[in-house]
Amino acid sequence: MNPNDYILNRINCPADLKTLSETERKGLAEEVRAVIIDTVSRTGGHLASNLGAVELSIALHTVFESPADKIVWDVSHQTYTHKLLTGRRDAFSSLRQGGGLSGFTRRDESEHDAFGAGHASTSISAALGLAKARELRGRDEHVVAVIGDGSMTGGLALEGLNNAEQLNTDLIVILNDNTMSISENVGALALHLSKLRLAPLYQRVETRAREMAQRIPAAKALARTAEGLSHGVTRLLASEAGAVFEGMGFTYLGPIDGHSTEVLIDVLESAKKLSGPLLIHIVTQKGKGYEFAESNSRMFHGISGFDVSDGIIERSNGNTSYTKVFSDTLVELAAEDERIVAITAAMPDGTGLSKFAEAYPDRFFDVGIAEEYAVTFAAGLAAGGLRPVVALYSTFLQRAYDQVLHDVCLQNLPVIFAIDRAGLVGEDGPTHHGVFDLSFLRHAPGLVVAAPKDTVELRNLISTALRHDGPMAVRYPRGGGPCPYECSKPEILAIGQGERLLEGDDVAIIALGSTVYPAVQAACSLRQIGISTEVVNARFVKPLDENLILDVLSKGVPTIVIEDNTIVGGFGSAILELASKNGCNANSIKLVGVPDSFVEHDSLDNLREKTGLSSSRIVEAATELIKTGLHPASIPVVQTERAKA
Amino acid sequence: MNPNDYILNRINCPADLKTLSETERKGLAEEVRAVIIDTVSRTGGHLASNLGAVELSIALHTVFESPADKIVWDVSHQTYTHKLLTGRRDAFSSLRQGGGLSGFTRRDESEHDAFGAGHASTSISAALGLAKARELRGRDEHVVAVIGDGSMTGGLALEGLNNAEQLNTDLIVILNDNTMSISENVGALALHLSKLRLAPLYQRVETRAREMAQRIPAAKALARTAEGLSHGVTRLLASEAGAVFEGMGFTYLGPIDGHSTEVLIDVLESAKKLSGPLLIHIVTQKGKGYEFAESNSRMFHGISGFDVSDGIIERSNGNTSYTKVFSDTLVELAAEDERIVAITAAMPDGTGLSKFAEAYPDRFFDVGIAEEYAVTFAAGLAAGGLRPVVALYSTFLQRAYDQVLHDVCLQNLPVIFAIDRAGLVGEDGPTHHGVFDLSFLRHAPGLVVAAPKDTVELRNLISTALRHDGPMAVRYPRGGGPCPYECSKPEILAIGQGERLLEGDDVAIIALGSTVYPAVQAACSLRQIGISTEVVNARFVKPLDENLILDVLSKGVPTIVIEDNTIVGGFGSAILELASKNGCNANSIKLVGVPDSFVEHDSLDNLREKTGLSSSRIVEAATELIKTGLHPASIPVVQTERAKA
Repeated sequence: MNPNDYILNRINCPADLKTLSETERKGLAEEVRAVIIDTVSRTGGHLASNLGAVELSIALHTVFESPADKIVWDVSHQTYTHKLLTGRRDAFSSLRQGGGLSGFTRRDESEHDAFGAGHASTSISAALGLAKARELRGRDEHVVAVIGDGSMTGGLALEGLNNAEQLNTDLIVILNDNTMSISENVGALALHLSKLRLAPLYQRVETRAREMAQRIPAAKALARTAEGLSHGVTRLLASEAGAVFEGMGFTYLGPIDGHSTEVLIDVLESAKKLSGPLLIHIVTQKGKGYEFAESNSRMFHGISGFDVSDGIIERSNGNTSYTKVFSDTLVELAAEDERIVAITAAMPDGTGLSKFAEAYPDRFFDVGIAEEYAVTFAAGLAAGGLRPVVALYSTFLQRAYDQVLHDVCLQNLPVIFAIDRAGLVGEDGPTHHGVFDLSFLRHAPGLVVAAPKDTVELRNLISTALRHDGPMAVRYPRGGGPCPYECSKPEILAIGQGERLLEGDDVAIIALGSTVYPAVQAACSLRQIGISTEVVNARFVKPLDENLILDVLSKGVPTIVIEDNTIVGGFGSAILELASKNGCNANSIKLVGVPDSFVEHDSLDNLREKTGLSSSRIVEAATELIKTGLHPASIPVVQTERAKA
Repeated sequence: MNPNDYILNRINCPADLKTLSETERKGLAEEVRAVIIDTVSRTGGHLASNLGAVELSIALHTVFESPADKIVWDVSHQTYTHKLLTGRRDAFSSLRQGGGLSGFTRRDESEHDAFGAGHASTSISAALGLAKARELRGRDEHVVAVIGDGSMTGGLALEGLNNAEQLNTDLIVILNDNTMSISENVGALALHLSKLRLAPLYQRVETRAREMAQRIPAAKALARTAEGLSHGVTRLLASEAGAVFEGMGFTYLGPIDGHSTEVLIDVLESAKKLSGPLLIHIVTQKGKGYEFAESNSRMFHGISGFDVSDGIIERSNGNTSYTKVFSDTLVELAAEDERIVAITAAMPDGTGLSKFAEAYPDRFFDVGIAEEYAVTFAAGLAAGGLRPVVALYSTFLQRAYDQVLHDVCLQNLPVIFAIDRAGLVGEDGPTHHGVFDLSFLRHAPGLVVAAPKDTVELRNLISTALRHDGPMAVRYPRGGGPCPYECSKPEILAIGQGERLLEGDDVAIIALGSTVYPAVQAACSLRQIGISTEVVNARFVKPLDENLILDVLSKGVPTIVIEDNTIVGGFGSAILELASKNGCNANSIKLVGVPDSFVEHDSLDNLREKTGLSSSRIVEAATELIKTGLHPASIPVVQTERAKA
């Protein structure tokens, strides 16, 4: 087909959608799916959720007038179609690449991105803010929140639902129900939705949707009589099905076929005329239109590249991943200790707990997207005598900061936090980097915080944590360890004990977690240019191995402290605090870490290079530190070594 | 009456309640109320909520076998009766005093405190953990969560509700509905409850409750037939009233008169026999039995002492409070700028926003106990072009840590955080101290973080924040400022600019917020013993006034950095990071702040003294620092000065 014949190529902004026929919309949906599948097969990204939201995105931009009307996408990983329709078609191949389009909405990427996201459950709350701002500013645009059934279980979404009615404002919430979040959905709401789905879908536009559209204006008139609209319309349309949403003050419309643009457009046009908070329940299929994703949407949630023809997903060829080692270790240890239970928040695959779930279904809890609950529930389990392990991504643990402090640490309960995706994560960008955890956990009194240098140490630390009679966090990065995994008997480590990996006289590197091996590598390179480098694996951020570190600092050689966490308040600061407490000369300590700004999306390698965490950048930092001679004594030594070299 | 005649004096543990007659229980309730009123009039504390929970506490301990059975109190500020009945009667006069009973439940205070709290909305989640642990450990005790209607609006409580059904475990949730949280309750759930309250109360035990009790075993049998209990019983008891809770998978019982121990005991006895998650909706009156608290429960929520005879609450005689200055300033500035809107989470009085609410009802939002929503909603308002001010207590902002990062800072939205009760708060203890905020906010990229030294500076900082085109947090302590307030025209301060308050050569103090005046006072004392002290008010934690601070550090005199925040990762660490970045000699810097452990309850003065924040302790620290001679140059100077003195 001639590129000029592509419908998508004629869509430069949402206005270009308005005149399409239903046949053209169907064709457009097909083209969009092809572009998404092709692009994601190369760039990686979220596939299943995007394929499920194609018709919805077309319908929304056909009915509403973005950017005047505001569409707020929850999580916003399902916005690829939205991006393609809002002037970002040509840039789409740069998706998730450094300098390219983000995989999520961003206010600074397009005026059509009314609100940015990455974490779940924010859309209703943010949309209510936009809706109320509209009124206070005397405007009249529409505000729409699009939220998946998985995100709806988050406390923030539920708080938003609960607050909508009293704001007395117009808001359209589209509940995109694909019967699962990332993995299977959980909770009473999910059960409620599954019952709602049993009601007949408004699939046949010729009959049901037109019928509904006709009824709505009448119902609207009814509302104006102060008799209250919501119950009237809802009862007409879905009888008593939407009781929970009605109870929260929403008018419930649904269930609606989310893959018919015609039905969606009809319903949305009608919705524009209704007032108050409205919940439109649409039913979609994750992975729609790509057979491999349809049949395994869980696998095709967030992926690296894949082969379009056979749906085979690229596997990293590296070493065993931290996730897998955590998973295997926990399953193994749980066989010996019945008190061990595991909790995840909608991430059984991502955190590796699926294996635990299979082995010990009664001791496994997937609480859905509900991190706060995950942690307080774990605190309750611990208070009840068990040994709960909460496995979350670092960035999502941010949601449960207060619960870590108030429910776990204050009561000194033995809850273990297995924190995956700590440090930089790469292409998912600033909403997903786990670069704050050391800073927000380190000040929790009584919490032990550790980071393994490799997968073997992860195994040992998990094992250690399960023997520790108090709360402990172990954070580890995305991907594989720096060296092959050897599955030996797990070793119980001494809490707060680090290790000196290399002796050296010219410069010292105190490293942690994913920065330890690059530090060792850097030390080898430095040795080749005559600089003798000491390398310490701190292993514990809290408590610090004070003896070891003071021993390093007391020598007064230029010292680099390096971490894959923000440089503000993290591991480096812990070293500076220790130095200050002990009156050490700290003017030769240089902190290296993630700078104090949000880190954009890019490949992990690029990001590590940019932020100074690669071994070559460590070499640079070390030579620079020696050269600037912050510690005068170091200069002659280096010169001597160099002279020898 | 002879003390031996008091029923309360015979209650040494819950078992002593079992044999009481209804008449005796009524007498006990009266005695308990008298003790609570008398004690709180002297110690301060939570009055209204405790007077509302007297009969419930008696009934719970009559029916259940604590500590084998687990009672989890939400917030746990309503547990004074519980404490009196569980062996803490004699210690009760020490309530909230240093070394005395806590005003909340604590696992380390009594085996009857199954779970500690202080923050709201945790009880259902924690109780589910205890319930599941019970099963996994093969035990059969009862688990009860007691939660107020105010706490039920928090996302964590809603997540708990949503997760209960699938756990397939027995849990009794008692919803203590007193029609308001601290101030009026908000949200759709509150509206739903108000409708439920219209149903006839089960007040007449002779008829309704016995009838119900008779029905329940039958219903229970029905449940065993796998036809499902919940709908059956609920329909019997409350027809369709509890739809929202039913939708969440709970069996709903209610509404029930929460001031009749007889009815409560009957209902709880019946509840023990039911399975699955059960919600008992009881209706109580805050302040019950003390006329002044009944008529003004909002005023009598959390108070300092008062006169029992006339209900007149002690007012602190000090200077104008930070809260009032914030309140007045915001009302004043909002007159000039229509974009200013204000948000609080159930704390209109505590944060001072009541005045704003009166002046600008359309621009004021009390979102109930829902801090996450408060912040994301504010982000939405800001994205819609407004200037939202979110006023929260420091400790409760912990709940919205992720929202501050992900929704506000990442999008650089101009949301202002007015953070009250920052630093130590005194008698409310470890769950309420605001001693982590500098550490959890400081690493948020792009966030401006400031703390005023007095109320005038607070006024200027609020005014500055409203002109700043990005997010900004201003944190200030409980109580009055250190000097009288002068209401002058608010001054716009330069972001990131501190001030040198005193020049000096022997020692320097870099202070912040509430520690600035004590530092100045200390400097005066030090001068009297011949030590010349420089004092700097940093004012901004982020961005730091780098020029000013480096100027201080470059002199190399012993320097104290002081803050009313944890010493880990806070303001002091920011100074160390700056020193490190600039290669300053930092070995003469001593950090003073809240130590890295949870700080117990005590008077604010005692706590400031204990943690080293009082002026006398600063003097001590300074002389010690000079004596230990971390910076050699300082010693002779001091000796010279002393010789002169």
